[in-house]
Amino acid sequence: MPELRPPAAARRHLLSVQGMSREDVERILETARRMASSLDREMKKLPTLRGRTVVNLFYESSTRTLASFELAAKRLSADTMSIRASGSSVDKGESLKDTASTLAAYDPDIIVVRHPSIGAAQLVSRCTAASVVNAGDGKHQHPTQAVLDLYAMEEAFGRLEGLHVAIVGDVLHSRVARSLVQALELVGARSTLIGPPTLVPRGMEALGCSTSSDIRDAVQADVLYVLRMQRERMAPGEAFIPSLREYTALYGITPERVRPGQVVMHPGPMNRGVEIDARVADSEAALVGNQVRAGLVVRMAVLYDVLTVAPVAAPVAAGVM
Amino acid sequence: MPELRPPAAARRHLLSVQGMSREDVERILETARRMASSLDREMKKLPTLRGRTVVNLFYESSTRTLASFELAAKRLSADTMSIRASGSSVDKGESLKDTASTLAAYDPDIIVVRHPSIGAAQLVSRCTAASVVNAGDGKHQHPTQAVLDLYAMEEAFGRLEGLHVAIVGDVLHSRVARSLVQALELVGARSTLIGPPTLVPRGMEALGCSTSSDIRDAVQADVLYVLRMQRERMAPGEAFIPSLREYTALYGITPERVRPGQVVMHPGPMNRGVEIDARVADSEAALVGNQVRAGLVVRMAVLYDVLTVAPVAAPVAAGVM
Amino acid sequence: MPELRPPAAARRHLLSVQGMSREDVERILETARRMASSLDREMKKLPTLRGRTVVNLFYESSTRTLASFELAAKRLSADTMSIRASGSSVDKGESLKDTASTLAAYDPDIIVVRHPSIGAAQLVSRCTAASVVNAGDGKHQHPTQAVLDLYAMEEAFGRLEGLHVAIVGDVLHSRVARSLVQALELVGARSTLIGPPTLVPRGMEALGCSTSSDIRDAVQADVLYVLRMQRERMAPGEAFIPSLREYTALYGITPERVRPGQVVMHPGPMNRGVEIDARVADSEAALVGNQVRAGLVVRMAVLYDVLTVAPVAAPVAAGVM
Repeated sequence: MPELRPPAAARRHLLSVQGMSREDVERILETARRMASSLDREMKKLPTLRGRTVVNLFYESSTRTLASFELAAKRLSADTMSIRASGSSVDKGESLKDTASTLAAYDPDIIVVRHPSIGAAQLVSRCTAASVVNAGDGKHQHPTQAVLDLYAMEEAFGRLEGLHVAIVGDVLHSRVARSLVQALELVGARSTLIGPPTLVPRGMEALGCSTSSDIRDAVQADVLYVLRMQRERMAPGEAFIPSLREYTALYGITPERVRPGQVVMHPGPMNRGVEIDARVADSEAALVGNQVRAGLVVRMAVLYDVLTVAPVAAPVAAGVM
Repeated sequence: MPELRPPAAARRHLLSVQGMSREDVERILETARRMASSLDREMKKLPTLRGRTVVNLFYESSTRTLASFELAAKRLSADTMSIRASGSSVDKGESLKDTASTLAAYDPDIIVVRHPSIGAAQLVSRCTAASVVNAGDGKHQHPTQAVLDLYAMEEAFGRLEGLHVAIVGDVLHSRVARSLVQALELVGARSTLIGPPTLVPRGMEALGCSTSSDIRDAVQADVLYVLRMQRERMAPGEAFIPSLREYTALYGITPERVRPGQVVMHPGPMNRGVEIDARVADSEAALVGNQVRAGLVVRMAVLYDVLTVAPVAAPVAAGVM
Repeated sequence: MPELRPPAAARRHLLSVQGMSREDVERILETARRMASSLDREMKKLPTLRGRTVVNLFYESSTRTLASFELAAKRLSADTMSIRASGSSVDKGESLKDTASTLAAYDPDIIVVRHPSIGAAQLVSRCTAASVVNAGDGKHQHPTQAVLDLYAMEEAFGRLEGLHVAIVGDVLHSRVARSLVQALELVGARSTLIGPPTLVPRGMEALGCSTSSDIRDAVQADVLYVLRMQRERMAPGEAFIPSLREYTALYGITPERVRPGQVVMHPGPMNRGVEIDARVADSEAALVGNQVRAGLVVRMAVLYDVLTVAPVAAPVAAGVM
């Protein structure tokens, strides 16, 4: 691998899928494949980011995503520091901006941000000289999840171009769905959003997908991508669906609803018996473990990419921004 | 030290004392002694597990045990990742099995599990290709605690064979007692369980120990092993003893109850003034600090052992399982 | 840098500013400047404390201070272990003394302690063979904060001798103020405490400062050092000030209250709109980011200092104690 270049005046971030070009996605996937082959060895550690510091700033509890980023950084030999909102000065009412400025003063190379507010990662990128990676901002974006899903799909089908992905469930509250639709569009795949009309927001077609309220339309897809049903959405006053039982009857992914040849994906953690039947979750068709593995190598690739690849000057091809 | 072998198809775990042979225990104690001599040096770090990943999956808050395993892994140069139940996807209702499968996808070398349910570590061992070490499962087993106690006893007496250990207090709720009785039996030492009849379960004699409700019977032992009195057991409806004050009067270890030549051990954290008098806790007879030190080197030895020693094929001598 | 010497029988600690000589302060500032120049390089890591273990024992949530100490230790290549009170055996009623003894058994080189009780760090220093650094004990002392403030002032003015610092706000509840007044006195600078009489305790003049209840007296100072207004002080029954609004009107640092040439400092986290106006916080005059950066290098210097510099024997010049 080439030498790391010092951070340029114009730094590279990964804030949203919108800001990525097809070339960006393909370069990260290619780097991730190289990372994966390096992990097959006994010694699962690369010296790539030795002496670099990666700060994980997590305002939402998310063991999976945090663990994935921490381990990715450690396998690249970076030093890591993880800050969770709970117990932090965040509780004392400090603004995100002041926290970001404080972190910036430590001069980290990369800040990975997860925050319940849309635009949080972008705000942090304006307060620091570090490269910023968005690990989820509100209902907005979760770009590394989208790229790792592409990675797992390409691994399963040997291609991305022309794939058809049915995304089933609570699209409305899902940053995963939003980022994934855009990423699929970028690489020449297509998506259909399927769920109760209350959970599939109008106007999503503008992102380049089709929509349906009939689970039977999923049969045409190569991939059944099952979204997590957030139980908290069932709270009185925010009842987007009549009952979980009815949701499961209409949209739950049972073995009968999986066509031979289809694969099933889920961003985790799964609600077995709600949006996905345990028999499906444990079947050969399920790629859930592959997604987790993909998450590690894709995040290694992203950490490497933001530090080494200079952003392109022209706004049209501005690359990861 | 020999080269690490790649994890065999049949991996080695440390799930319970029952699964260990006398040879297993003695090999781990011998390795721990070598680890201890290495720690005397200025540079307290060995390259033994460089590039290996140890995941600590803790569903119960336990600063002492977690810190001991983390430090053991770091002193062997392993990368560590610690996941606590609080704030994790566990809270989102994910099953232990799904969490274990997620971790397995990161391909760690060792998973150390602490969980309030009996059999949790065994369940994890069936979901992953990693070696699993049980750091406490419900009221069942705490095997590394038992081995570290043996280590501290051998350090104090120069032998284990023929030692007599009086285990005093709340045996009923103690995984420490259960594992220790079995471990002592394995190495040719014997134990007497002493406590109020409500806290010494019937049938423990089947494990190879004797029982008593009279603290005076402890005078014959070489070691007074004092169990922690869990204050929460005094809750109305779960009152196993009439009052803490009465418990202390009948079973608390005061200086008068320690015979010259006896040593006093406690797994920590101590309730001074309840099960142990502060004067005893701070006396020369107390080995509490030695136990903590033993915990570090024994855990280093266990991490090394599960990765390097191939399990024996024959079920009777199946070794650590 | 010279070789590390093995810890002497008489170890060096950093417990309070009182225990420091002017030479101690100047030596640490000089080491910090060398650390700072090393951080300008691409590879922000020094091998200085490789193989050493730094334990952070934090009984108060303080993300900033903990992060600063963790990163300082990592940049010196030390192994770190951080223990927070929440979820620890502290919750099970274990005394600080027993926790310290447990940690001592791991034989760490340095224990960094933060605790709500005055004298906690000193207590820990008596239970262990490690060097102890006080990271804040109750309302008493926060010596590394004081030294990092000196560092940032010297960076801004090129000198410390003769500087005049106005410390504004809730002096009564501030360990920062107490340590800083003493540190300024030590290096030949002077301080004026300014705030409502209920928040500026009588007798502070004995530490070598003057006091005032008129914010206009701050105009003479070179530095406006703004203390955090702890909102919890406004609780009924503990109302030290009539209202936050009135406090802000009388003592809040607005642009009008900053004389050209003055710099503004704040230990963070800031309450924008309470003790400091957002326009001041974001102005060129504010050194808040410099203070955070200073915190990192000063803590690196302190970790290095306690391990390498032998304490002086004579009590009068006992140095850091």
